[in-house]
Amino acid sequence: MLKLKENSRDDTASLMADLGRKARAAARPLAIANAERKHAALIGMAEALIRRQDEILDANAVDMKNGQDAKLSPALMDRLKLTPGRIRDMADGIRAIAELRDPVGEVIAEWDRPNGLHIERVRTPLGVVGVIYESRPNVTADAGALCLKAGNAVILRGGSDSLNSSAAIHACLVEGLKAAKLPKDAIQLVPTSDRAAVGEMLKGLDGNLDVIIPRGGRSLVERVQTEARVPVFAHLEGICHLYIDRSASLDMAIGIAVNAKMRRTGICGAAETLLVDRVVAGTHLTPILEALAKAGCEIRGDADVVKAFPFAKRATETDWTTEYLDAIISVKLVDGIADAIEHVETHSSHHTEAIVAEDAKTVEKFFNEIDSAILLHNASTQFADGGEFGMGAEIGIATGKMHARGPVGVEQLTSFKYRVRGSGQIRP
Amino acid sequence: MLKLKENSRDDTASLMADLGRKARAAARPLAIANAERKHAALIGMAEALIRRQDEILDANAVDMKNGQDAKLSPALMDRLKLTPGRIRDMADGIRAIAELRDPVGEVIAEWDRPNGLHIERVRTPLGVVGVIYESRPNVTADAGALCLKAGNAVILRGGSDSLNSSAAIHACLVEGLKAAKLPKDAIQLVPTSDRAAVGEMLKGLDGNLDVIIPRGGRSLVERVQTEARVPVFAHLEGICHLYIDRSASLDMAIGIAVNAKMRRTGICGAAETLLVDRVVAGTHLTPILEALAKAGCEIRGDADVVKAFPFAKRATETDWTTEYLDAIISVKLVDGIADAIEHVETHSSHHTEAIVAEDAKTVEKFFNEIDSAILLHNASTQFADGGEFGMGAEIGIATGKMHARGPVGVEQLTSFKYRVRGSGQIRP
Repeated sequence: MLKLKENSRDDTASLMADLGRKARAAARPLAIANAERKHAALIGMAEALIRRQDEILDANAVDMKNGQDAKLSPALMDRLKLTPGRIRDMADGIRAIAELRDPVGEVIAEWDRPNGLHIERVRTPLGVVGVIYESRPNVTADAGALCLKAGNAVILRGGSDSLNSSAAIHACLVEGLKAAKLPKDAIQLVPTSDRAAVGEMLKGLDGNLDVIIPRGGRSLVERVQTEARVPVFAHLEGICHLYIDRSASLDMAIGIAVNAKMRRTGICGAAETLLVDRVVAGTHLTPILEALAKAGCEIRGDADVVKAFPFAKRATETDWTTEYLDAIISVKLVDGIADAIEHVETHSSHHTEAIVAEDAKTVEKFFNEIDSAILLHNASTQFADGGEFGMGAEIGIATGKMHARGPVGVEQLTSFKYRVRGSGQIRP
Repeated sequence: MLKLKENSRDDTASLMADLGRKARAAARPLAIANAERKHAALIGMAEALIRRQDEILDANAVDMKNGQDAKLSPALMDRLKLTPGRIRDMADGIRAIAELRDPVGEVIAEWDRPNGLHIERVRTPLGVVGVIYESRPNVTADAGALCLKAGNAVILRGGSDSLNSSAAIHACLVEGLKAAKLPKDAIQLVPTSDRAAVGEMLKGLDGNLDVIIPRGGRSLVERVQTEARVPVFAHLEGICHLYIDRSASLDMAIGIAVNAKMRRTGICGAAETLLVDRVVAGTHLTPILEALAKAGCEIRGDADVVKAFPFAKRATETDWTTEYLDAIISVKLVDGIADAIEHVETHSSHHTEAIVAEDAKTVEKFFNEIDSAILLHNASTQFADGGEFGMGAEIGIATGKMHARGPVGVEQLTSFKYRVRGSGQIRP
C-alpha cells in the first residue's frame, strides 16, 4: 500500500515543483509521439487495469476501511467503491479513448495566398494539464487517458479519501506508458494528501502548468476559479432553463420537461427552471406540471403558477438562481420569447438552455440572443454531455468563453500552430 | 481639447469600475447586432475620421507640443505624429475591416448524431476586450474597429502622450456607433492618464473584462503578462530562427535570409538567429553572410562561424536569447535538422521559425517537432502577420497556447456556442 508522506508545507512545495518540471520535460517527447504509440500505451493501460484488478481492489479496500473509520457519508462511500465491474468500465473507457481519432497534427483549416504561400492551421497539444478531483478514483483513469490522447502531460491530484485506489490505478497507467516507450512522467499522480499541493497547482508550478481542470463539487470549483493563476476549464453550476413556447407541441413539451428534470437530477445538465409562455398557460401548464409531479418532482412556482396549480409551493427570489441538483423545479410564466430570453440572460449560469417550439423565428431568436455554452431546440437539456455530442469522452463542461466552451473533449485539450509552405517567397 | 482629469487612486478605481459596467451592458446588444449594422457603424467611423480631420490634427498638435516640452525622443514623436495621410490610412483600415466577413453566427462545424440531433458550433463574441497601448494614436481606430467587427465591447487605454489625439479619434468612432444606433459604450476610451487605470484593468474590472491585449514594448507586455488576472493575448518577444538545411537552394537561402532579417528589423517577425547546417557551411555560409553584411547587418557568430567569416564578431551566450530588433544577427553552425530543432526549442520565444530546405522529410521533422506559433518552409519569417495570412487585420500576435495563437484577427476575438436542433429527443 502507498505510504502517505507527511509533508511540511516546504516539502510539498518542492515536491510539486519537481512534478511540474518532470511534466514539462515529458510534454515534449509526448507532443511528437505518433498516434500508434499513444494508442498502444492506452491499450496497455486498459490491459493492466484488468490484469492488476486484485491489486486495485486491495488498495480500494484500504480506502474503504479508512472511509468507514472517518464516517464518510454513504454517497461518498459509493463514489469511492470499486468493483470488478467498475474496473472493467474504466478499462473499456480507456479503450474507447484509444479508438478516437488522434487530434494532434490534424489540419483544422488550410488556405492559399495570392503569393503562393499555402497556410495550414494544425492541432498541437496544449502542454501540461492539471486535474484536481475528489473522491471518484475512476477519474484517475479517464483524465489520464484523455490528456494522453491529446498529447498532453498531466498531473492528477485526486481526493485524499481515494489516494490508495488512485495510486493503484495510476500504476497501471504508467505500465501502459512504459510498455509503449513513452515517458512515465507523462501521467503523474500527486503522492501526498497535503492540501498545500492544490495551492501549488493553482499557482501554476513555476509556469509548468498550462491549464487546470477541477472535477468535483461547487466549493472545489469555486476555489480553483478564484485562486488559479492559470487558465481553468470548468463550470461552477448548471442553472439550466427549459422554455415552453406558445408554438410548442404539448406532448413534446411534457416528454422533454420530465426528461430534462428527472432523468438524473444530480447532473449539471438537469433543468432547474421551467419557463412557460403565458399564452399557453391554460392548455400546457397543468399537464406538464402534473407529469413532473407524478414523476416525483417538487414544484416551486411564481404567483400565477401557484394559482393555476395549487400543489405548487411558492418560489422565492433565490429559487431562480438555485441549482437544486434534486427533484425540485422552479416554474415561471413569461410573456413570450423576449421575456423568456430576458429571464435566462439574467439568471442563467450560461451552461445549457432548451426551447420547445415549432415556430422557426422564435427558435432562431432563442438561439441568437442567449449566450450559453449549449442551446437546444426540441431536445432535453440532459444531452449536455461530451459523449452525447459524439466527442467520445469528456473531462468536464466549461462555461468560460476562452478556448474551451461546452463539453471538454480531446479536441478541446489541444492548441494549434500554423505551418506555411512556400517556394522562396520573400515579403515585399 | 480634452481636459485631463486629476484623479486620486480611489477616483480612478471607481471610474474604471464604471467603464467596466458600461462595457458589459453594451456587450449584449452588440453581440446580437446584425452584420449590416456593424458594417454601417464602421463606414460611419471612417467617414467621421475624414470629415473631422482638422479636429484630429488640432488635438494631435497639442500632444506634439506636450511631447516636445517633455522632450520625447524623435522616434516617439514620429509615432505620435498624425498627418492627413495617416488619418486617411486609418479610415482605409477601418473600411477594410468593415468589408471583412462578419464572424458572429458563422457555423464553424456541424454534424449529425445517430439519434437525429443536429449539432452546430457557432461563433459568438468574446464579450469585453481591454486594449492597453502606447504612443501610436492609430491603435485607437484599429483596435476599436476590430473589436466591434467581432461583436465585442472594448475599453481602450492609450498612452498618456497621445491622449488628446486618441480622444479626437475616439469621438469619430462614437459618431459611427451612434449613427448606426449601436450603444456608444461599445467603444470606450479611458479618459485619464493616471497609471492606476492600467492596474484596475489588470484586475479585471470586477469580472467585466474578458481578455486584455497589450500593444507596445517589452516592459508593458511583461507587466501585463505578470499581473493580469484575466487572459492575455500577447507575445513578449519574437526570437525568430531561420535554419538553412543541407538540402537548401543557396539562392533561395540568400534571398530569404536577407529579407527575414533586413526588410524591417524592428518587427516581431524579423529573424534574430541564423542556423546553418554544418554540411553546407563550406558552400552556403559565406555567400549568405556576405549578402547580409552587404545589406548592412552586423554578424555575431559562434567560433566556427567567426573562423569561416572573419568579419563576424564572436557571439556570447546571451546572443542566442536576444531579440535585437536591429540590423544584427546571431549565426551558429548546427549538426543537421535534429541539432537545429534542439537549438530552437531551447532558445526560441516560440513566435516564428523558418526552414530553407528541399528535402521533404527534413521539412516535416521541422514542422512536427518545433512548437512555435508559426513555422514556415522556404519563405521569410517576415510573413508572420495577420494581413499576410489573409486575416485582413490583426490586433497583434500571440505566443500563448490558449484560445488565440499566432496572428490575432477578428476570428480570434470570438468564442463559440453550440446550437442543437432536435425533434423531441429525450435522453435514454
